[in-house]
Amino acid sequence: MRHAIRIAEMNDVDAIARLLHSFNEEFGEPSPPADILADRFKDLLQADTFVVLGGNGPDGLAVVRLRRSIWTSGLESYLAELYVVPNRRGQGLGRALMHAVLNEALARGATTMEIGVDAPDYAARRLYESLGFTNHVDGAIGPVMYVYEREL
Amino acid sequence: MRHAIRIAEMNDVDAIARLLHSFNEEFGEPSPPADILADRFKDLLQADTFVVLGGNGPDGLAVVRLRRSIWTSGLESYLAELYVVPNRRGQGLGRALMHAVLNEALARGATTMEIGVDAPDYAARRLYESLGFTNHVDGAIGPVMYVYEREL
Repeated sequence: MRHAIRIAEMNDVDAIARLLHSFNEEFGEPSPPADILADRFKDLLQADTFVVLGGNGPDGLAVVRLRRSIWTSGLESYLAELYVVPNRRGQGLGRALMHAVLNEALARGATTMEIGVDAPDYAARRLYESLGFTNHVDGAIGPVMYVYEREL
Repeated sequence: MRHAIRIAEMNDVDAIARLLHSFNEEFGEPSPPADILADRFKDLLQADTFVVLGGNGPDGLAVVRLRRSIWTSGLESYLAELYVVPNRRGQGLGRALMHAVLNEALARGATTMEIGVDAPDYAARRLYESLGFTNHVDGAIGPVMYVYEREL
């Protein structure tokens, strides 16, 4: 199945905010109001962030952050969010978003991409692994890598 | 034991580069030459990065990246590197660096900190856990969180 996939532009911030708000609602996470999120993305899209939108709704999105690498002259990228609305799942839209994400990150100068994933997110983990991501050091042969975090 | 701890300034880039170069050498990782790293930190320290130095050598450092949060009006922080030279380990220098890191990140507006840690880095994991970090979702009661990565 072909999916309409495009890089978000400044006039897409309301669609981005709506999808992210639905994302939080679905998973019972507290969420800023959609208008606050839209304003924030007006800034982020002009700074270190790009968003890929998929489907005609749009029905899904991926949010990527970029920053300079310490170890190379290029950029490193981080997949901050990936979301597809419930009634569009299982149709390859997440995979189509990820292909676009990888191409766009590369085109913008990134040489690596990282993702934080909760252990029980098997569908996401299978998708990322099928795209060449690994949670093992040294390209799949080493031990696993954890995310540690705390509030400040 | 008290440790000399301070936030790196622009004229510390050579010390930063030397420590990071030793770090890579010790762990058999490829490393850019020290002069390239020093130049890179001239840029990073003016952009999204701060470094904490510890000991008189200095003998250790912590490198922290900051960026705007998607979900709050504050910043999120990421501990990119933590290193203490071999002959100064076991004296609390890593812990002193981490206390300074947490204070400085908070002072700069960060509301969260993340760290990627390889599973067998038990000393580091114990240190982070003793400082309130967790690799479990929802503050230690949920499943673990993995880092996935790939080259682009």
